Amino acid sequence: MNFPTIALIGRYQDAGLDTPLKAIAQVLKETGREVLIESITASNTGLRAYNNIASIEDIGRKANLAIITGGDGTVLSAARHLAPYGVPILGINHGRLGFITSIPMDETFKAIMSIMDGSYISEERILLEGKVWHKGKQIYSNTALNDVVLNRSGVGGMIEVKVELNDVFMYTQRADGLIIATPTGSTAYALSSNGPILHPELSAMVLVAVAPQTLSNRPVVIPYDGILKMTLITVGRTEIGASVHFDMQTLSELYPGDYITVQKSKYKAKFIHPEGYSFFSTLRQKLNWNVMPISSEMIE
Amino acid sequence: MNFPTIALIGRYQDAGLDTPLKAIAQVLKETGREVLIESITASNTGLRAYNNIASIEDIGRKANLAIITGGDGTVLSAARHLAPYGVPILGINHGRLGFITSIPMDETFKAIMSIMDGSYISEERILLEGKVWHKGKQIYSNTALNDVVLNRSGVGGMIEVKVELNDVFMYTQRADGLIIATPTGSTAYALSSNGPILHPELSAMVLVAVAPQTLSNRPVVIPYDGILKMTLITVGRTEIGASVHFDMQTLSELYPGDYITVQKSKYKAKFIHPEGYSFFSTLRQKLNWNVMPISSEMIE
Amino acid sequence: MNFPTIALIGRYQDAGLDTPLKAIAQVLKETGREVLIESITASNTGLRAYNNIASIEDIGRKANLAIITGGDGTVLSAARHLAPYGVPILGINHGRLGFITSIPMDETFKAIMSIMDGSYISEERILLEGKVWHKGKQIYSNTALNDVVLNRSGVGGMIEVKVELNDVFMYTQRADGLIIATPTGSTAYALSSNGPILHPELSAMVLVAVAPQTLSNRPVVIPYDGILKMTLITVGRTEIGASVHFDMQTLSELYPGDYITVQKSKYKAKFIHPEGYSFFSTLRQKLNWNVMPISSEMIE
Amino acid sequence: MNFPTIALIGRYQDAGLDTPLKAIAQVLKETGREVLIESITASNTGLRAYNNIASIEDIGRKANLAIITGGDGTVLSAARHLAPYGVPILGINHGRLGFITSIPMDETFKAIMSIMDGSYISEERILLEGKVWHKGKQIYSNTALNDVVLNRSGVGGMIEVKVELNDVFMYTQRADGLIIATPTGSTAYALSSNGPILHPELSAMVLVAVAPQTLSNRPVVIPYDGILKMTLITVGRTEIGASVHFDMQTLSELYPGDYITVQKSKYKAKFIHPEGYSFFSTLRQKLNWNVMPISSEMIE
Repeated sequence: MNFPTIALIGRYQDAGLDTPLKAIAQVLKETGREVLIESITASNTGLRAYNNIASIEDIGRKANLAIITGGDGTVLSAARHLAPYGVPILGINHGRLGFITSIPMDETFKAIMSIMDGSYISEERILLEGKVWHKGKQIYSNTALNDVVLNRSGVGGMIEVKVELNDVFMYTQRADGLIIATPTGSTAYALSSNGPILHPELSAMVLVAVAPQTLSNRPVVIPYDGILKMTLITVGRTEIGASVHFDMQTLSELYPGDYITVQKSKYKAKFIHPEGYSFFSTLRQKLNWNVMPISSEMIE
Repeated sequence: MNFPTIALIGRYQDAGLDTPLKAIAQVLKETGREVLIESITASNTGLRAYNNIASIEDIGRKANLAIITGGDGTVLSAARHLAPYGVPILGINHGRLGFITSIPMDETFKAIMSIMDGSYISEERILLEGKVWHKGKQIYSNTALNDVVLNRSGVGGMIEVKVELNDVFMYTQRADGLIIATPTGSTAYALSSNGPILHPELSAMVLVAVAPQTLSNRPVVIPYDGILKMTLITVGRTEIGASVHFDMQTLSELYPGDYITVQKSKYKAKFIHPEGYSFFSTLRQKLNWNVMPISSEMIE
Repeated sequence: MNFPTIALIGRYQDAGLDTPLKAIAQVLKETGREVLIESITASNTGLRAYNNIASIEDIGRKANLAIITGGDGTVLSAARHLAPYGVPILGINHGRLGFITSIPMDETFKAIMSIMDGSYISEERILLEGKVWHKGKQIYSNTALNDVVLNRSGVGGMIEVKVELNDVFMYTQRADGLIIATPTGSTAYALSSNGPILHPELSAMVLVAVAPQTLSNRPVVIPYDGILKMTLITVGRTEIGASVHFDMQTLSELYPGDYITVQKSKYKAKFIHPEGYSFFSTLRQKLNWNVMPISSEMIE
Repeated sequence: MNFPTIALIGRYQDAGLDTPLKAIAQVLKETGREVLIESITASNTGLRAYNNIASIEDIGRKANLAIITGGDGTVLSAARHLAPYGVPILGINHGRLGFITSIPMDETFKAIMSIMDGSYISEERILLEGKVWHKGKQIYSNTALNDVVLNRSGVGGMIEVKVELNDVFMYTQRADGLIIATPTGSTAYALSSNGPILHPELSAMVLVAVAPQTLSNRPVVIPYDGILKMTLITVGRTEIGASVHFDMQTLSELYPGDYITVQKSKYKAKFIHPEGYSFFSTLRQKLNWNVMPISSEMIE
């Protein structure tokens, strides 16, 4: 049997999730699978009474698949936590189509049944591991499926950051921020800042500056096995420090001399998609690539 | 009576136009207007038999309004030709919504009747006048509602162009091409090359380089009363010269030393829009600004 | 006599300024001019003892010219304060060449003497006036020579802002920030965010989004007599509000529903430049336009 | 002995090359190496009389190193031809610093002697192999160290191209052209068209559109082992076809239905650099990354 034990994880504090989650649990049980409900999900949705409740760690140890209902944000979080356990993730999109939640809500049951029958695509996505250093000591570390972002506070001016790759000096840049994104994150914040799209199978990360003062600055795509070091040189005319973000988790109050090292994580996030899933198809839909925005006649 | 004499002009060689054109002519005649059919339109659509045929020049002299059915291209051409006569233009879009054809085909009669009743918006758009000079002699001149474009041949390499504004040196740039666009043209080819959108009421033109070799090159918006001079310095490693384009009309075989001067035309193109027309509404539709392409959750 | 009364203003807390300022004062006095030292400048440089001390308001009322030594920042501040009085400004650059401080330090005396002899160029630059509204009441107002910037806090996510021009809906955009820049400000922060360069003589402002989520967002150049309204819709997942900046002065803690209106100021900043000053020459130097960054052979 | 047989290749039709080439040949012979002069180089420089003349094929079979004097263009050509033989290349820059010619002319002898003593860095760069297909038949093939470019003719309008990766539909795009670049080519033409910089060690290629009509188009970085297929859909309103370029070699007159496949070459180009060579150091110099173009004060 494919995926004999399956965990259900729902979007944090999303009231309307109880009905679909119950239905999914029911359907899976009817196929003979064991169903685990993630504990916070259970609390928020009132599913506590009827099911096996499990912490994320339990899920990591016991589940063969985790079904996540919610948006890309919920999936990002689950993916980071489950990557060390190798539990694959199936994202069901509660809202508009996401880049990594590949099943729309109204196709839930059809898609789940096909996947249970063995008709699916597996995919691995790389993760970044970042460490923050203050006065030579590591004060924080975290992983990111999308990106590690160092950015200025909202007041004061640009930050100035020195970037090194494998201890070789790359550049010093004044900017609003610097983004190091995985292929997964290349379609998120980095894309808003003129970054390129990295194919999901690429073993690479991309360094993108937000509002760089040097006009000839361009995104740089680097091999995944490199170690990037970003040292904060100045934080503008402000008492408030810069901050660093791992996906959406923030560490504030960074000051000149503090630095961040980013390298590949030893873990990868695993995803399950229904048959027929295509990265470029998602991209075309999300970026409106099927639409011709400018009148062809005016251009020709 | 508003617009007692109205000319009809249709897209060049567009077979399906005879029925809607006949209907428009009929409706207008019923309101007591005199209708002129542009002569080439008449030939292409078989409307010759039943109507007053008129050349563009006749239309310029006699008509109070010209209704153009077709795409932005047909409108561009009519606008250039009718600008010296001050005849306003009403664009009916035969295809998808254009930037300057403001009436979709299926709202034709309702829109025309409202406009005949005096319910409309008038708008003026500036035109450029360009002259091409070879060995100190002017060899060509033309006007453009969208843009004047100097570009390389398809083979060989980049062209190198020296740009001066009012005889003051601006820059020398190696690029695929240089575009000088009006506000109208700012949403056409210039927009594909990272140019800004110029509001239609702005008295300005914008200089945009296509694939500029200097990475810190940026579009420059300049006052409408300036004179821009683009001198061809080199044409790459090729025997084939560069070419210059006025909207879509091409002059080929330009060589080093040839130059183009671009300045404001003494004429303006006049447009009539139905009440409720909004530049930004068109923009939002054409550029999909109503759509959020990136998952908000991945970015926040 | 040109400029019989001249004020000297130096960069805030810049210790090394006393010697050049004393020398400039001495030279001007020798030509029979009356010299005023701005009061804070006098305190910081020890020039208090020997000269007429004057507040910015006194300078506004009495001076025919203000000579500013410092960077563009010092000039920005002086220009905003002196614009209502119509006192022209001469910027002497203490550091690298600025966009609006047109005299390098080591050409100070030669340039000043020429200008005293009547050899100079006058220039006017437009200013923006911005007002911040909370629950329908205006809570703040200020002017800006460069730009008015609405931006997110450093933590949390993007802000969502609705933009209207003259009460007509333009777009709603999720982004790190929105910049409204004058031609002067178009070469500052806006330029880092893909904004175009606006010629200084243009009566226009440009709206530029920083890291816009809609990938087809482009800078929009609008007429100077329009009124732009930016309404904060959301501030991301954070307790910390957005902030608005007028040149470099910050108002923090803006929340959904607050809005900012930006329109032309009734004042203009006046600048004096030495003969031979050229906007494009400054641009070429600052942006390295004289340098070909990519090997021509690889491109051709 | 390192590199016992060394070939010298000079820039095509570059008159001033005979003196430095003779000197290099002399120095190498004094160290006991055998020196081959490439035959066209020998003709152009008058070096025919004194040396062993060899065709590129001979050089490929016999030489352990090829020293190329000229610009990046000369090196590109030599690299393509010598890649199948595995002969490493040392580029000496006759002109300004190139991206891949790492030795400036005035450091020639010092650098060569160090390299002969075994002090050098070896590097491999990937190559693309492209094939052109007409009515289902392959009509042309070539390799490229920089890029394969499909572009419109200089007259007429944009081309429309359908792109597939490994037979999966990617997008259809109207544009001036499409570039597929290697990491080496990412700093050439692709960089002018908003492409990212790919680190030289990356096994990837990047697809960049020139002046794409879809404003949300972005460069896409794809794995090196993929097969890209670009099918010409339309060529604008022109009788003149599109053209395809392999580095700088052009094949013209491509028409709708023709397609190009691009994949990795089985060969790699080998380069020798002096100790201390750094990709980022070259980049900083070429792109003026050491220069802060915008006044920090205006931005902060």
